[in-house]
Amino acid sequence: MTTSGPARTRLSPEQRREQLLDLGVRLLAHRSLDELSIDLLAEEAGISRGLLYHYFGSKQHFHEAVVRHAADDLIAQTTPPTDGEPMERLLASITAYVDYVVANHEGYVSLVRAAAGGNESLRAIYEDARSALNSRVFREDVRGEVVADTPANRLVVRAWSAMTEEAVLSWIDDPHGLGKDQLIAVLVASLPAVVAVIPPG
Amino acid sequence: MTTSGPARTRLSPEQRREQLLDLGVRLLAHRSLDELSIDLLAEEAGISRGLLYHYFGSKQHFHEAVVRHAADDLIAQTTPPTDGEPMERLLASITAYVDYVVANHEGYVSLVRAAAGGNESLRAIYEDARSALNSRVFREDVRGEVVADTPANRLVVRAWSAMTEEAVLSWIDDPHGLGKDQLIAVLVASLPAVVAVIPPG
Repeated sequence: MTTSGPARTRLSPEQRREQLLDLGVRLLAHRSLDELSIDLLAEEAGISRGLLYHYFGSKQHFHEAVVRHAADDLIAQTTPPTDGEPMERLLASITAYVDYVVANHEGYVSLVRAAAGGNESLRAIYEDARSALNSRVFREDVRGEVVADTPANRLVVRAWSAMTEEAVLSWIDDPHGLGKDQLIAVLVASLPAVVAVIPPG
Repeated sequence: MTTSGPARTRLSPEQRREQLLDLGVRLLAHRSLDELSIDLLAEEAGISRGLLYHYFGSKQHFHEAVVRHAADDLIAQTTPPTDGEPMERLLASITAYVDYVVANHEGYVSLVRAAAGGNESLRAIYEDARSALNSRVFREDVRGEVVADTPANRLVVRAWSAMTEEAVLSWIDDPHGLGKDQLIAVLVASLPAVVAVIPPG
């Protein structure tokens, strides 16, 4: 046996691209999108700018790919457990969401700003991710134990989701009013609370 | 008597500037900020571009002045009545807010986007307006009948305010789930409902 250290397997172009996107997402955690350049990624990955342009085409496409990758991570990391009561599963999902935003604060804020600020392709990725998270509320609660799937509730869930995002970002900026567990408890309990105050149509 | 029609009084430069800002805000109601140019204002006001540059200095300063004027209008128009129970006054204020956003939809959306998208001076104007609206919740309810003034409640009110904005904008995009009165009722009732679910610290 002559190998020392882990075996190095040759990566496919697709695997290499995924690896670069993982790195891009990690770099985005503590940077804004504006600060995430092809140059920086090239330096961190130890490969040439030319190769990165080969993989991603342009800075805009690179940013889109990183943001889509980050959105996929967010959706994956906030997947609730498959068993348990709906409110317990919502608690697990919201806890994971708060942890994700705390861990990826800079990149998350810059995504929200880029999406809100008129970059149409980033807005589309952000909206897709939000829709996936919002739809999950109904998909994970098919019997409507917490929130029945109605047009009114869809609107309220979307609004509650904006409240959740604002609460977490404001709490990160100034956490002295609430402990993390309190914050999470408010977000979880506010969903049925807000649905409950919808007056009959 | 030889006058025909209303007497024309000579406006002071400050009054003239206010008049131009009023026009700018009216033009913004159904346009984005990007579409609100000095050329358009000059055409609508029937005065030269040069004179507008004299009043406002640059397109950026013109936009800031219009947006500040619009924010002042929003704050003025959503002022609750001075008497009545706190929840009745909140209802009046939220009703006025929904009416304002409906009437000024294009401009409001473009302000939110400009503020979120990294235009720092527009963000500051937007944040000032939001802070004024959020602080009003506490100022109008000095005895804390609906929401006592605590750091936790300040955070929750800020989040509720983001929920309110998202709900109204989403409802304008797709109003079929809720009637306007239902929407307003949800927004009003959700404030005490969300405050009520804050667990003890």
